[in-house]
Amino acid sequence: MGMTMTQKILAAHAGLDSVTAGQLIEAKLDIVMANDITGPMALPIFREMAEKVYDKDKVVLVPDHFTPNKDIKSAQNSKSIREFAKEQGLKWYFEQGKSGVEHAILPEAGVVAAGECIIGADSHTCTYGALGAFSTGVGTTDIATGMATGELWFKVPGALKFILTGKPGEYVSGKDIIIHIIGRIGVDGALYKSMEFTGSGIRELSMDDRFTMANMAIEAGAKNGIFPVDEQAETYIKEHSVKKYKIYEADEDAVYDDVIEVDLSKVRPTVAFPHLPGNAKTIDEIEAMEPIWIDQVVIGSCTNGRMEDLRKAAAILKGQQVHPNVRVMVIPATQKIYKECITEGLLGIFVDAGCAVNTPSCGPCMGGHMGVMAAGEKCVSTTNRNFVGRMGHVDSLIYLASPEVAAASAIAGYIANPEKAGEK
Amino acid sequence: MGMTMTQKILAAHAGLDSVTAGQLIEAKLDIVMANDITGPMALPIFREMAEKVYDKDKVVLVPDHFTPNKDIKSAQNSKSIREFAKEQGLKWYFEQGKSGVEHAILPEAGVVAAGECIIGADSHTCTYGALGAFSTGVGTTDIATGMATGELWFKVPGALKFILTGKPGEYVSGKDIIIHIIGRIGVDGALYKSMEFTGSGIRELSMDDRFTMANMAIEAGAKNGIFPVDEQAETYIKEHSVKKYKIYEADEDAVYDDVIEVDLSKVRPTVAFPHLPGNAKTIDEIEAMEPIWIDQVVIGSCTNGRMEDLRKAAAILKGQQVHPNVRVMVIPATQKIYKECITEGLLGIFVDAGCAVNTPSCGPCMGGHMGVMAAGEKCVSTTNRNFVGRMGHVDSLIYLASPEVAAASAIAGYIANPEKAGEK
Repeated sequence: MGMTMTQKILAAHAGLDSVTAGQLIEAKLDIVMANDITGPMALPIFREMAEKVYDKDKVVLVPDHFTPNKDIKSAQNSKSIREFAKEQGLKWYFEQGKSGVEHAILPEAGVVAAGECIIGADSHTCTYGALGAFSTGVGTTDIATGMATGELWFKVPGALKFILTGKPGEYVSGKDIIIHIIGRIGVDGALYKSMEFTGSGIRELSMDDRFTMANMAIEAGAKNGIFPVDEQAETYIKEHSVKKYKIYEADEDAVYDDVIEVDLSKVRPTVAFPHLPGNAKTIDEIEAMEPIWIDQVVIGSCTNGRMEDLRKAAAILKGQQVHPNVRVMVIPATQKIYKECITEGLLGIFVDAGCAVNTPSCGPCMGGHMGVMAAGEKCVSTTNRNFVGRMGHVDSLIYLASPEVAAASAIAGYIANPEKAGEK
Repeated sequence: MGMTMTQKILAAHAGLDSVTAGQLIEAKLDIVMANDITGPMALPIFREMAEKVYDKDKVVLVPDHFTPNKDIKSAQNSKSIREFAKEQGLKWYFEQGKSGVEHAILPEAGVVAAGECIIGADSHTCTYGALGAFSTGVGTTDIATGMATGELWFKVPGALKFILTGKPGEYVSGKDIIIHIIGRIGVDGALYKSMEFTGSGIRELSMDDRFTMANMAIEAGAKNGIFPVDEQAETYIKEHSVKKYKIYEADEDAVYDDVIEVDLSKVRPTVAFPHLPGNAKTIDEIEAMEPIWIDQVVIGSCTNGRMEDLRKAAAILKGQQVHPNVRVMVIPATQKIYKECITEGLLGIFVDAGCAVNTPSCGPCMGGHMGVMAAGEKCVSTTNRNFVGRMGHVDSLIYLASPEVAAASAIAGYIANPEKAGEK
């Protein structure tokens, strides 16, 4: 019986010729990652199991959630993983001011590559599926085990096959596509399955589109999201990493629980309404409603804080002014992206428009800092979750959108169509 | 009996021909300012006294301490003053992304001018003395009263006269001079007095030097710090404000409690050691000690987050790398300064060196956010207070310094002499 792309990677890492969905396996880990929330929780568990990490080149720590430290507790947490990284001689420790958001910095710094088996103590670890890796979020006990032994057990996931065709419109990006997909299958539509993206439409998606889509696989309940490694992906990996990588392809007779076709040319700018990422509405549906006035816009995060995202937002904000009722937080996802924003003139565009540009951090995404919301406030955010109270008060509302929709809404003061951003 | 410069301003605002130290007066207020900490506390008190502010052009609100909002509570606080500003039709409400730190934005936006009587519910309101205004920090009850009535009682302060002569060295700026002065007179050396700066040395001080010095008058216990309005100050005011201003000069026979001469050419780069701003040590004394290794550097705040400060820091950081053990937070004090840092290439220098550049905010100065310290950590900071636990854990240490010392220390990893920053 044929295997999916994910199953092939898992089989190889378990030293098995084949695996099937539901099988329990023990797989070798190429990268084990934690951040400033999960790392400090994992350390005491790790200490009970081992003195040294299994491989100092493969255990990665990224303080990014509450950094620059928002309070004493977060400062203590950052300190604990900083000291651990030094004590263990870790190759990959990303310090504040020299790094960025975990799921942006790992691909950018060449820490992850195609064909790898990666775990991270953060649910959006599935991001690296854009590079053709098996990559999934786990809990702190699992991360501690991974740090100590370099192995972890997995239940081999079944899979959904997404056949993408056509070319997305000018103002449609990975974010619209993944919200569209989650809207179709629901937030549990891929529960413990792989979302395997295939089809001719993939060549129309930039790497940043793919990172965004893989990033949100977890929002459909998926174990992982994964893209085939095409020429574009190989170019990206070679540009960013010196690692040897391996390309896995699904067997022709791989078994999928379902096959879903998505014509990208038909996907519209799409927004996920409160309080679920699957609560998708097209911009056309929104335009038919009463205006939804907003208080804040957030452009950034592991989902949409990459260079292409910021270029798209800046193209709309250029020469415009943020609506007087709206605060806009722009948070480039890494220092390198931040620097490119300076060089390309984007940062100047954001500041001229009246945006607050912050240093790379997860920021307000999970209600951390740098833009937490008060009761009754509404935010258009390029982040990945719009659960109740995610970005602040339980009575605040989050609308998940692309950088283009976010930028257009920042100017309009209500959720707006980027296709009409130039109009008055 | 002659009056000091401060007494002349107070007499004019009290409608009196003359006042003397110790006299209780009722003075009219030109500006009444509060921030996102003190504003929300003042509002309920104000509501008991009045429905409308006494003058919507003179009551100023600046959310800058915990903004972009660090948590739900600060978001609620910001919301309360935002809504109040809208309800009252205030002319000067400075929103996140469109403003900056109160004591930098008020002079920059032309809200304050020479000869005015200004109160702010923030101890460093004394900053505007650099423009030849009487300006002082008050509590929330006083601010509420000021907002309602436009008047406040004051006990007329006595004064210390500082005669500044000579020209400061290349790496000596306002910060070194004011720490030197506080070191000489002590943190209660000017208790409830005016610090009146005079002398030929003033013409060697830029406006940014003067803002820094006036800003820290409160650290010597002063009621206010004040500079004469020379050509440079007038140029600044005219460039930034359309307000009519009035120049007051001390009488020749004004009475001072003490006269202190400061030869600026003798002032060395000076650092205030924990836990008092008066605990001054020259860089020469520090160089004679064992190196003081540090964990963090903060460049910014109402004390030293202005353009000249950032230029000086950037000149030292250009082409250099932040020491691997050090995190550096750069926080331009206003959006305009942030933009100028982009235009002049400073932001690129900071990022290339490995600094985290944050959006304008008070940030970690009072332990707010954006760089709070853990136990045992040491920070060289361009801010104004190094009290126990001010920037985080009670077991963290703060060394107050100029932007030049801060930048040199960021590279060295220990408190370093900017005069030798280029050496290896």
